[in-house]
Amino acid sequence: MNHFEVLCRDPGGPARRGRIKTAHGDIETPCFMPVGTRATVKGLTPKQLEEEIGAQVVLANTYHLFLRPGHELIEKLGGVHRFMGWSGPVLTDSGGFQVFSLSSLRKISEDGVTFQSPIDGLRHHLTPELSIAVQEALGADIIMAFDECTPYPADRKQVRESLELTARWAARSKAARQRSDNLLFGIVQGGVYPEMRSLSLEKTVALDFDGYALGGLSVGEGPAAMHEVVSEFAPRLPEDRPRYLMGVGTPEDLLAAVASGIDMFDCVMPTRNARNGMYFTSRGPLSIKQARFREDPEPIDGACNCYTCRNFSRAYLRHLFRSGEILSSVLATLHNLYFYHRLMAGMGRAIEAGRLAGFKDDFLRSYQAGEL
Amino acid sequence: MNHFEVLCRDPGGPARRGRIKTAHGDIETPCFMPVGTRATVKGLTPKQLEEEIGAQVVLANTYHLFLRPGHELIEKLGGVHRFMGWSGPVLTDSGGFQVFSLSSLRKISEDGVTFQSPIDGLRHHLTPELSIAVQEALGADIIMAFDECTPYPADRKQVRESLELTARWAARSKAARQRSDNLLFGIVQGGVYPEMRSLSLEKTVALDFDGYALGGLSVGEGPAAMHEVVSEFAPRLPEDRPRYLMGVGTPEDLLAAVASGIDMFDCVMPTRNARNGMYFTSRGPLSIKQARFREDPEPIDGACNCYTCRNFSRAYLRHLFRSGEILSSVLATLHNLYFYHRLMAGMGRAIEAGRLAGFKDDFLRSYQAGEL
Repeated sequence: MNHFEVLCRDPGGPARRGRIKTAHGDIETPCFMPVGTRATVKGLTPKQLEEEIGAQVVLANTYHLFLRPGHELIEKLGGVHRFMGWSGPVLTDSGGFQVFSLSSLRKISEDGVTFQSPIDGLRHHLTPELSIAVQEALGADIIMAFDECTPYPADRKQVRESLELTARWAARSKAARQRSDNLLFGIVQGGVYPEMRSLSLEKTVALDFDGYALGGLSVGEGPAAMHEVVSEFAPRLPEDRPRYLMGVGTPEDLLAAVASGIDMFDCVMPTRNARNGMYFTSRGPLSIKQARFREDPEPIDGACNCYTCRNFSRAYLRHLFRSGEILSSVLATLHNLYFYHRLMAGMGRAIEAGRLAGFKDDFLRSYQAGEL
Repeated sequence: MNHFEVLCRDPGGPARRGRIKTAHGDIETPCFMPVGTRATVKGLTPKQLEEEIGAQVVLANTYHLFLRPGHELIEKLGGVHRFMGWSGPVLTDSGGFQVFSLSSLRKISEDGVTFQSPIDGLRHHLTPELSIAVQEALGADIIMAFDECTPYPADRKQVRESLELTARWAARSKAARQRSDNLLFGIVQGGVYPEMRSLSLEKTVALDFDGYALGGLSVGEGPAAMHEVVSEFAPRLPEDRPRYLMGVGTPEDLLAAVASGIDMFDCVMPTRNARNGMYFTSRGPLSIKQARFREDPEPIDGACNCYTCRNFSRAYLRHLFRSGEILSSVLATLHNLYFYHRLMAGMGRAIEAGRLAGFKDDFLRSYQAGEL
């Protein structure tokens, strides 16, 4: 039985509406995965994630959980699902991206990456084999091959060396797999150079993974270059496997990428921005700090049916933010994740109705019209 | 119709099980009021307060809301209930305690207190009339007379001057009342001197309030002195009015005070300690920081049925606390408030069953037996 089913296709392009089967339940695509870095989506209980957001799958970070509390501990306690009280699917990244972006004193060799923990200064050595072992100990439903996230900017030679290392690590990741109850995804690198993306795609697809991710994007290349890579290479990933665009992005990015045939996304934007008082709305982003909301009795977004919009005024939410109250983060996170999930569900229905282009135009006309 | 009904009395002492009728619903006593300083019980949504805790009434702080966002704003937005999305009863304190404990440059005169806002340095003048106006603008169901919280230690002369000022302010508070849909409580001061407490009680009761509070306790006098005052003076407050012990306390304090005839409590302890990783359990307080909980798969308290205990291990809660995750505060607050509410409900049922003393002994035997 295939773990991925394309349920229907957009007549006007490569977009599709699908379903991924995992050991902890199905994921309807296109889908957005809230980021639960340290085995918690910051500020929300699993109950809120399920009941208020309708989250289908949560991403947890291998790098963070490896360093604290450690994958052996989580395995001993029954795996990451039981550990965090989340019974739905979990995807873990490989740790590669965080090693490159968050740790210091890192040294890359053919074998893997040596780095220093920012928590206690201890040195660690992460390899494809260890990354897979950690992810399998955590017990994630979808795990990622260990890759080098190519820095940006980088010249062709650097990009090529990096993608070739990533390809060798991908083969080692696949060989290291021990469990049969998860899905292993390969990651296509190659920076912004089409011939390098092509080469990485070929090498990765040749290894036959359960799904494929486009990695190394949203790292400084800008939205235009990113959209170019996605629109050219998402459709070239195997039709019968889920396609995942890592670490992206804004609502505009999600619309463009789904239209290009991407199925899965993760991004800290809705959750991190929430903690900074930024709300996504049907009329674009809104910063609750502004003085003009001081006495505003309206909800954040009159078109939104989330818990926050059903119950609280902008004036109250501004008060909470200015007072540094925990509930500010909680209510903004609830709203932003609801917004992202509604957007994904809307795209799914639009694909089913054969009108994704119309949905996208309608959404953007409102979203880019300016603040409510 | 009386706003307070004693439903039954403990045969062995002054404890009682009662019901307070307010404009936003009934409060079953004995009851604990979670502290919602800035119109939010830190970290919890009103839905969690209602569904997970069973909170009946929330306390909000006049001082904090007066300074930010301002009572006029909250009034304009429909009052504190609508502002914070809480449809049950709300009690506001008078602001007196916070003016004395939190603000600087304060100057007390017969008229009131001048103080400086710690937020913006502006000077404010709070009087009994203004305190009542602020509380009525907020629209609380139970409001408190403006009092001077007598400092501790203080000699008899200081205590006497202070309680007499409080009595004059109590009369002015009562005269200042404009609304008829709230209950106004008077506050008995008098420090730890029995004759001063007596004098304050007489003067306060003579003004005929809807309920009475014992104030100026838990300010440094120690539990023994506090229990002495409560056990002597709670029973001397009018039988047919609710009795409120302000700012108290530990589970032991609540048991002793209910046995002395107190009906209502508020305290930051369950919520503040939660944010510091301290959990109340049936075997006493537990600090989740401890290394011995590193791999502990058990819930905080096997005897507890709260959301946190039903879903998470000590190992996970320790991980959240050590990682500085918001969810640590949320889950600990859920647990501690559930613990306090279950304790109050247990005392209420014990009074109905005529076995409060037995309940208290059973609880304390376990609670003081040492950590789980």
